[in-house]
Amino acid sequence: MLVIGENINASNSKVAEAIANRDEEFLAHLAKAQASAGANVIDVNAGSGHGSLERAIADGKWLIQVVQAAVDKPLAIDSDSAEVIKAVLKEYTGERPLINSITAEPERLESIAPVVAEREASVVALAMGAEGIPPKVEDRLAACERIMEHLAGLDIEPKRVLFDPLVLPIAVDTSQGMVTLRTIEEIRSRYPDAGVVMGLSNISYGLPKRKLVNRAFLLMAAYAGLDAVIVDPLDTKAMSLIKVADMLTGKDPSCRAYLRAHRKGDIVD
Amino acid sequence: MLVIGENINASNSKVAEAIANRDEEFLAHLAKAQASAGANVIDVNAGSGHGSLERAIADGKWLIQVVQAAVDKPLAIDSDSAEVIKAVLKEYTGERPLINSITAEPERLESIAPVVAEREASVVALAMGAEGIPPKVEDRLAACERIMEHLAGLDIEPKRVLFDPLVLPIAVDTSQGMVTLRTIEEIRSRYPDAGVVMGLSNISYGLPKRKLVNRAFLLMAAYAGLDAVIVDPLDTKAMSLIKVADMLTGKDPSCRAYLRAHRKGDIVD
Repeated sequence: MLVIGENINASNSKVAEAIANRDEEFLAHLAKAQASAGANVIDVNAGSGHGSLERAIADGKWLIQVVQAAVDKPLAIDSDSAEVIKAVLKEYTGERPLINSITAEPERLESIAPVVAEREASVVALAMGAEGIPPKVEDRLAACERIMEHLAGLDIEPKRVLFDPLVLPIAVDTSQGMVTLRTIEEIRSRYPDAGVVMGLSNISYGLPKRKLVNRAFLLMAAYAGLDAVIVDPLDTKAMSLIKVADMLTGKDPSCRAYLRAHRKGDIVD
Repeated sequence: MLVIGENINASNSKVAEAIANRDEEFLAHLAKAQASAGANVIDVNAGSGHGSLERAIADGKWLIQVVQAAVDKPLAIDSDSAEVIKAVLKEYTGERPLINSITAEPERLESIAPVVAEREASVVALAMGAEGIPPKVEDRLAACERIMEHLAGLDIEPKRVLFDPLVLPIAVDTSQGMVTLRTIEEIRSRYPDAGVVMGLSNISYGLPKRKLVNRAFLLMAAYAGLDAVIVDPLDTKAMSLIKVADMLTGKDPSCRAYLRAHRKGDIVD
């Protein structure tokens, strides 16, 4: 499974502070730690500039330079704003960026999809439209279909799309775990060349022992067909279970990666 | 998920010793501890009498009396021998025993199925025939079909059958995790009124951190459709994850059982 390290995100107050203070050392260290822990891609989100587009762009440009100087990994350019994504991409010197994210909202499709096409980027596509996260599987799939049609019109191949089925908290509606898992299965079946990616933490919102719930959901999602996960790579229990999940789903020939990780002391219970 | 406590089994040397010494206190305590920890059914296997049928019957009869005096739970009468099952059942005073197990082997079907019919018992049905555990999904399903046909001929309803899809070690063949999980899905789809039960430990045979691998497999199996699990109820991490699995698969309305278990301190990470 592809591991996308989530830690460099301005929604974390320490990261926001480090960005504001231009604390290169802190952020470079956070990037390196994630890479050492096994992240395949480092997500980079510099925040919304406290409402100032100008500041959001300046923060994003500075941050991407710091992170790409620190690690030799592909980066995910993570922002809600097409303007920020475009500006940050200009600073990105890596080969194929991952743009995080588009939705089926026409405005977002029209502003971000051309950038994906131009840069031959990969893209995270959220299974939602302007109405927010749909509570039903079929409405999430309809959003995927609208995205796929739009991207096909720009000659963006399915293999460059990572769908995010989205997760609503199980504490609010106990059917939502199955809704997300069924959405993963349906996406796999309809778009066999596309990938499926997910962040975990929403599922456990409002519950105690959230990380335990998140990890359990990750295992179910791995069986349903998840290819990639947006996760804290410094969470050694989660990283151990990703290795176990790959092994149990037949993606680890001769259990080699699991056994190697165990010998290094990286499999924790 | 139905929890079948596996601890009273003569394959465990302490249990074998306690049976040989007629150590009622040890075994009664083990039964009570499993019930307190949340086992819904207590499996009882007195062993094969070191090759003596007479001794196996005597051990089985003694053990079932000890366990049913200790706990007010349904018991699973667990033996390879139809003679032992018949003899032990005569001592069993509970309402509906669970007989563990039959297979598609004609001899075993013909000797054990009539006992299931006569006692209106439930039965664990292993998805295998005389040839051992089939490596392929379709051969396991063919075994299930032979069992179902035979039981239908004796008016044994599907709801009294718990199919065991069986598990081969992932360390020997990395496709076997998916074979078992797909078998669970197919059984669920073909026999919607039957249950699906599984023991966990085979999957991790030959690997380090076996319990971690077993628990990860349990979560995948829960999503695939597992109804019941043969497990050590004193394994608090496994029992915590069973609660989480029920919640994530929509079987715990308002997350009540999970939250109650958490308040009691029973959810461990």
